[in-house]
Amino acid sequence: MTGSGRGAEFELIERIRVRVSTRADVLLGIGDDAALLRVPEGHDLAVATDTLNAGVHFPHDTIPSAIGWKALAVNLSDLAAMGARPAWCTLSLSLPHADEAWLDGFVDGFLQLAAQHGVALVGGDTTRGPLSVCVTAHGLVQHGGGLRRDAAREGDDIWVTGTLGDAAAALAQLQAGGVADPALRARLDLPEPRVAFGVALAPLAHACIDVSDGLLQDLGHVCRASGVGAEVDVDRLPASPALAARSSGDTLRGEQACGGDDYELCFTAPPDAAGAIAAAAKATGTAATRIGRIVDTPGVAAVRADGGTWTPPRSGYAHFA
Amino acid sequence: MTGSGRGAEFELIERIRVRVSTRADVLLGIGDDAALLRVPEGHDLAVATDTLNAGVHFPHDTIPSAIGWKALAVNLSDLAAMGARPAWCTLSLSLPHADEAWLDGFVDGFLQLAAQHGVALVGGDTTRGPLSVCVTAHGLVQHGGGLRRDAAREGDDIWVTGTLGDAAAALAQLQAGGVADPALRARLDLPEPRVAFGVALAPLAHACIDVSDGLLQDLGHVCRASGVGAEVDVDRLPASPALAARSSGDTLRGEQACGGDDYELCFTAPPDAAGAIAAAAKATGTAATRIGRIVDTPGVAAVRADGGTWTPPRSGYAHFA
Repeated sequence: MTGSGRGAEFELIERIRVRVSTRADVLLGIGDDAALLRVPEGHDLAVATDTLNAGVHFPHDTIPSAIGWKALAVNLSDLAAMGARPAWCTLSLSLPHADEAWLDGFVDGFLQLAAQHGVALVGGDTTRGPLSVCVTAHGLVQHGGGLRRDAAREGDDIWVTGTLGDAAAALAQLQAGGVADPALRARLDLPEPRVAFGVALAPLAHACIDVSDGLLQDLGHVCRASGVGAEVDVDRLPASPALAARSSGDTLRGEQACGGDDYELCFTAPPDAAGAIAAAAKATGTAATRIGRIVDTPGVAAVRADGGTWTPPRSGYAHFA
Repeated sequence: MTGSGRGAEFELIERIRVRVSTRADVLLGIGDDAALLRVPEGHDLAVATDTLNAGVHFPHDTIPSAIGWKALAVNLSDLAAMGARPAWCTLSLSLPHADEAWLDGFVDGFLQLAAQHGVALVGGDTTRGPLSVCVTAHGLVQHGGGLRRDAAREGDDIWVTGTLGDAAAALAQLQAGGVADPALRARLDLPEPRVAFGVALAPLAHACIDVSDGLLQDLGHVCRASGVGAEVDVDRLPASPALAARSSGDTLRGEQACGGDDYELCFTAPPDAAGAIAAAAKATGTAATRIGRIVDTPGVAAVRADGGTWTPPRSGYAHFA
């Protein structure tokens, strides 16, 4: 109840604080009313925030370390889609009760990903409530160099990183009451934000978005913001071996074009940037595939290999639906 | 469920976005993967994050506009306690279902307080889940000028703004099954973050904290961080007329010294700053009262007007307790 203090909360925070790494630009981290941070001259600050709720954004049976990982990953993916280098984050964690073993697992996953990308956890709070994780991630980008959704231009190539559809396929298996293929489930639980490649893209790409809600839907946001349209070669979307072995035809197309939670980057770039993009992909160990082009006709058209238009069974799903 | 997109979410965000004010230092606000913000040279960035959960941080019967107000207020209070001038915030809102009337009321309260302090809402998300509000607030402070908890020094005066105990008294009335005095309830629901005074304090005070968990407990954090102790004149704590009319003796002392949710600033400053502090209080329309002094003996001692030591009935409450 309001008015309650935070005695036990402090112990949980202390349990997190002692494990956190810092950075030279963190003047004051966990333990005060606010963190104090230093933004270098000539840089803009990129700020993304996303909440994950149990049963909405991850299955109830997800292991704590995967929840910690994913809560940070989806925010780092947003920063990657801006071309920003991640620097700091805050964590607001609601837990039904103080479960130290659960918290330790959660923090394992969260800090493992943070360490991979040099991100310092600088603040946050723990509160009592239904399981929910709110992360705010802060990144840095050269002034004026952020990758926006509204910068796609007619004639741009459309690219996507990695592979699409694994997370949606895993979710379909779970929702059918089965056990998900481990390779697919790993994509659902432990998405890899394309941080290094996003940073490399900043001077090369026009528009960028991360694929969280389904490729066609997310690309639609780019097109509307940019006042353009898109043609996507739906049969050229990159698929993982695990997905290709399981799905085909319209099932595969639906999982790849409409499935969410892939956290790949979809971006547009002028055709003459293709060589530099391929080099950046190679340098960062990221696959990048051209999947279509930006056109002046509004809307997002999915075109099959036989030249026909493919109509998605639905244009993404919806919260509150 | 994860994999679900955000069709209806977008409409809720759009409902918020069209009402939001901006600032010249917001390069890109709501509607992209991240906001892009400009931190002026010579300033540090202060970042605070706090989550409010229904039934934990506000009573279930709280009106939506008060929930919106309080969710931002507690974060602005954290920035005020750093001496930082608030600039931007993000909002992550979990709602059980898409209720436009509720959302409009919530946004009314949130944006009213944001407008009072020139804060731009630059991003966030809406998700389906139990009612919960996570806000991250960003402020600016002159480089090296942030008010930390670890800067109290022996011989400092201890001050507090406004009055203490109203929120705790309102909560006690509610928890006893009654209706709270409206003046007290307003302090619980609509706390006034001491923003202008916090900014004015930055060059004057040593240490500062906001009183969210109870004066003695919060002052204890300052003392531990600073390696000092405190003596508080418990019978000199400022009380509102509504509280003074209702409570006395140990009940009053408990509500004032141990009650949470006041969101006043407690700060320490050298005695020779008293004149400047009084002037800053007058200039910002804020009451400021000296309530004790920093000593070298560890711990926080509460001293009665008769010179005896007052022992609190408990040292604050605890989440997860």
